[in-house]
Amino acid sequence: MPDISPLEHEQILELISRREPGHGLPADFYHDELIYRAELTRIWQRGWLFAGHTCQIPDPGDYFTLEIGSDPLVVVRDDEGTVHAMHNVCRHRGTVLCTSESGHIGRFICPYHQWTYARDGSLQSCRGMQDDLDRDSLALHRAHVEVLEGLIFLSLAEDPPDFDPAAALIGPASRPQGFEQARVAKVVDYDVAANWKIVWENNRECYHCNANHPQYIRANFDHYNADDTPAQVQAAIDNASLRSQKKWAASGLAVTHTQTGMTSFPGCDSEGWFSANRTPLADGYFSETMDGRQVAPLMGDYTDPDVGTLRMRTMPNFWNHSSCDHGVSTRLLPAGPGRTRIQVTWLVAAQAEEGRDYQLEELMPFWQLTSEQDWAICESVQRGVSSSRYTPGPFSTYKEYNVDALVNWYLEQMSSRP
Amino acid sequence: MPDISPLEHEQILELISRREPGHGLPADFYHDELIYRAELTRIWQRGWLFAGHTCQIPDPGDYFTLEIGSDPLVVVRDDEGTVHAMHNVCRHRGTVLCTSESGHIGRFICPYHQWTYARDGSLQSCRGMQDDLDRDSLALHRAHVEVLEGLIFLSLAEDPPDFDPAAALIGPASRPQGFEQARVAKVVDYDVAANWKIVWENNRECYHCNANHPQYIRANFDHYNADDTPAQVQAAIDNASLRSQKKWAASGLAVTHTQTGMTSFPGCDSEGWFSANRTPLADGYFSETMDGRQVAPLMGDYTDPDVGTLRMRTMPNFWNHSSCDHGVSTRLLPAGPGRTRIQVTWLVAAQAEEGRDYQLEELMPFWQLTSEQDWAICESVQRGVSSSRYTPGPFSTYKEYNVDALVNWYLEQMSSRP
Amino acid sequence: MPDISPLEHEQILELISRREPGHGLPADFYHDELIYRAELTRIWQRGWLFAGHTCQIPDPGDYFTLEIGSDPLVVVRDDEGTVHAMHNVCRHRGTVLCTSESGHIGRFICPYHQWTYARDGSLQSCRGMQDDLDRDSLALHRAHVEVLEGLIFLSLAEDPPDFDPAAALIGPASRPQGFEQARVAKVVDYDVAANWKIVWENNRECYHCNANHPQYIRANFDHYNADDTPAQVQAAIDNASLRSQKKWAASGLAVTHTQTGMTSFPGCDSEGWFSANRTPLADGYFSETMDGRQVAPLMGDYTDPDVGTLRMRTMPNFWNHSSCDHGVSTRLLPAGPGRTRIQVTWLVAAQAEEGRDYQLEELMPFWQLTSEQDWAICESVQRGVSSSRYTPGPFSTYKEYNVDALVNWYLEQMSSRP
Repeated sequence: MPDISPLEHEQILELISRREPGHGLPADFYHDELIYRAELTRIWQRGWLFAGHTCQIPDPGDYFTLEIGSDPLVVVRDDEGTVHAMHNVCRHRGTVLCTSESGHIGRFICPYHQWTYARDGSLQSCRGMQDDLDRDSLALHRAHVEVLEGLIFLSLAEDPPDFDPAAALIGPASRPQGFEQARVAKVVDYDVAANWKIVWENNRECYHCNANHPQYIRANFDHYNADDTPAQVQAAIDNASLRSQKKWAASGLAVTHTQTGMTSFPGCDSEGWFSANRTPLADGYFSETMDGRQVAPLMGDYTDPDVGTLRMRTMPNFWNHSSCDHGVSTRLLPAGPGRTRIQVTWLVAAQAEEGRDYQLEELMPFWQLTSEQDWAICESVQRGVSSSRYTPGPFSTYKEYNVDALVNWYLEQMSSRP
Repeated sequence: MPDISPLEHEQILELISRREPGHGLPADFYHDELIYRAELTRIWQRGWLFAGHTCQIPDPGDYFTLEIGSDPLVVVRDDEGTVHAMHNVCRHRGTVLCTSESGHIGRFICPYHQWTYARDGSLQSCRGMQDDLDRDSLALHRAHVEVLEGLIFLSLAEDPPDFDPAAALIGPASRPQGFEQARVAKVVDYDVAANWKIVWENNRECYHCNANHPQYIRANFDHYNADDTPAQVQAAIDNASLRSQKKWAASGLAVTHTQTGMTSFPGCDSEGWFSANRTPLADGYFSETMDGRQVAPLMGDYTDPDVGTLRMRTMPNFWNHSSCDHGVSTRLLPAGPGRTRIQVTWLVAAQAEEGRDYQLEELMPFWQLTSEQDWAICESVQRGVSSSRYTPGPFSTYKEYNVDALVNWYLEQMSSRP
Repeated sequence: MPDISPLEHEQILELISRREPGHGLPADFYHDELIYRAELTRIWQRGWLFAGHTCQIPDPGDYFTLEIGSDPLVVVRDDEGTVHAMHNVCRHRGTVLCTSESGHIGRFICPYHQWTYARDGSLQSCRGMQDDLDRDSLALHRAHVEVLEGLIFLSLAEDPPDFDPAAALIGPASRPQGFEQARVAKVVDYDVAANWKIVWENNRECYHCNANHPQYIRANFDHYNADDTPAQVQAAIDNASLRSQKKWAASGLAVTHTQTGMTSFPGCDSEGWFSANRTPLADGYFSETMDGRQVAPLMGDYTDPDVGTLRMRTMPNFWNHSSCDHGVSTRLLPAGPGRTRIQVTWLVAAQAEEGRDYQLEELMPFWQLTSEQDWAICESVQRGVSSSRYTPGPFSTYKEYNVDALVNWYLEQMSSRP
């Protein structure tokens, strides 16, 4: 997909210039087709996207599919165990190769004319074609892939940004969680009638948590902010941090966020697209579950349930909250100016067995409820910003600093041609 | 929403110039997106729109919502009993405040971050925001409101047209009907796959009545026209008019339309957007019901069922037919070039009780059938005018003079920038 | 519908110039709105379209409707037995006249205001209109019609291309099949989520048959190609051709395609939009049925089941496969850049009676399965060519020469203004 035209670029710069600092985005950014097309080339086809988990494709030939905008992709493990991401589109007539959400293939055989590709995407045979074809030039179009502690990232860019800084931070932070020896307990797919940025703006503040997330706020501290943390709460988090800090040191874990309020993310420039931190849970909570109890076997390197929560995020499409016994990954994919496909995945230790070691009805409600509470409010925001009288309001400097940072990060991406 | 661009304005003037006098509108007016956008600013956001009835919100805090194009609005009664109309969109992040069709609120509390607005739309609190905010500038965006004998009108314009002339005519005409002491017996919402102008064009002639409205024509005279009124019918309407004129004078009612054929409406300029008149019903009919019998207690000031029918209309979105015992309001709202949301509301006297004083199955069929007969034909017209070979046909000078007037009124609105 | 603007014409020429010879069409041709609009005027409103069969409307007043893009049409037989095609849109206000798929009318009476048209489309009456109307100018807009051996073709063009060359070829070829004395055994309508050209590209090669059409390849030879016909198969087809040639000569039939591989179609210029040929079936096959057995009475002039298959095609919307006992017509109509309405019709001899002379479960599966196998693959191609990384691949010179010819034919039509 070529980038938008120079004239359209000028239009976008003009729109960007209309944004008042410290305020929300002008309405066009949430429903305009041109903006959406520009986002595809400037954000979704430029940076790194979270695709899924290595444990979804444990064996050679295992694959899963995903759709980024209208681009069908397939992620597959090859014979050497390497993970590849390819455009799921035959190089002959354009047929989608794998139509299931996941499965196992020996080779990719196009259902139309049986062109056959190896698991790494190279063209193996195209019976019936003339001999003088340059078969090497007819491999599946590939995306770049980085695998990091069980997390699979891909980039559609020709020349993607350096992944090393992200790996240097997220790698050590996520290693103890053991996603490489995990298994998927459950996947839920949502089709949310809201622009993907509305979903992110919702994610980047806990100003809305008290009224919307009765489950979440019992387990966490980040809905309190510098301006309204009661002394008693401050004492609780200080105690929790101190206690955890001491205890965790033994197992090499560190508390990296010891305050009320959310950690800063994203950064205001293109380098600030990833973050990870570990933070204590509220007293009595050992897992993000309805009552705080551990509900599945310990994951990864953990030897004690008291590990707080690990949180990771990467722009533009991933966040993860992990407790001692399970992790929950949320993956966003754009499906139009007013539609976002969201996949929420619950992971447990590889050896855990449903029914014996964990029950879905204990594992899922905390994040299923919290997620669905957010999707409902996002859809209501999408309707409101479509009003002809919508005027972007001011952000709370105490509670929405991350939404502001998100908007700034977004506008920086949108300002430059890919 | 800003008006269309100067270049687009030229395109519309060019389209307008293509309309042949006495003929229908060129096809683009029924399905073009640009035309639709221009209509929003030039018609729907400029004049007065019927919103609903005061009896839908009898008590302070009662509200109902409506959507004009993609603008969510809420109409609410405040503590002093004043009716307000506000854009139903939080000034903070744009969330829709009231998501129900109707209800009761103490204050407007945004479900997202609990910004709180009084019933008049002023911002009462926004806990968590910085102190230096100009709270006065963050009231809900308001629409102008006029309440007239129980009918609520709103205008989205900054500076709406003078309402007084409409009030001077419709006020006295509707007062005896007693809509201020009415109650809603039933509401039916329709999503009609036709442009809103096709719905109006259908409403503005009774040329189609004989074949399409077997119920309506038994009760009324207006399907006869000057060119085809038999002497016998003319005698009947003369008798009915004379008898009514005499009888009604006692109670201050007047026959204001004493002929076959429909009253002229709308007027050909912007002042001609409202009308009201009273006309006799056919012999034996005391109400617009299936058999002409009164089916509910007398409304308002009426002391006798023989009051004919009161008819009111305001462009671009309202008509009402009222009999001695009930009134039926039809409200149109645009939902796209080819979609109109229509709400039909049946009203009875406030003290009437369903089951005891009236039965819905006696009250509703006359106008439910007549309405649905029209929606079906409108959808068929929408399909036909989408044909590449559709050519606007001539209007009957005898029977479609009002359709011609409607088109002229419409083109006048569309010719000038708001 | 006016043709696209000169600027848009330039855009299309530019797109056309991007097509690499021997390769598929650039992606825009499959989903762009502008391309679709240009196709309507340059292809669908210019050439001859297959509409249906005369046996669908045996008696005066019988009609069927169809929709070409957003143009509703009606095909009707008049009192003299002549077949007419008219735009199914009232000349008064644009109402669709006939809303059923088929039926019988005395005259066309518009349901709105009862304007009445004769079966040939002339305006008979318009009660209520002024006297000075030019009624002659208010006949239904007509399309050109050609009836050829029971097949009805129409053209929306003002001045359609010469039909005689098509008649000269298809007439004699189809006469023995007896479509004039046929009846419709079954109609199945499909709404396929693929561009109409993808459906044609699929139709124009049998490279995909081995893997996708287990039924079809047992009955036919054309999935073998020059480059991979085994000697044994070549012998079989030679035998079949020779035997048939001899036998058929007696009844005036001729084998016009005696080789493996598909006949060439379409031709590379505008004259090459039609073709017909007769070819032997595989040994043991006397009809395109699941086991090759004849399943209905012989049609037309046939006196022996061994007549091979008759195949006819006309661009842009028709193909037919006929055996001794039944014929199957496929009609394509565009319904948007990514949607095609497809009607498949099974025909048998007029005197055949369901239950007695044939069973639908024996008659239908061969072509129902084959068709639905194709629609599924076409929808998968539509998804793939919507990918931003889709690059048109090379055609097989052995097996996709007709797809290449189709693309060339298409681009020639698209290059010139109508």
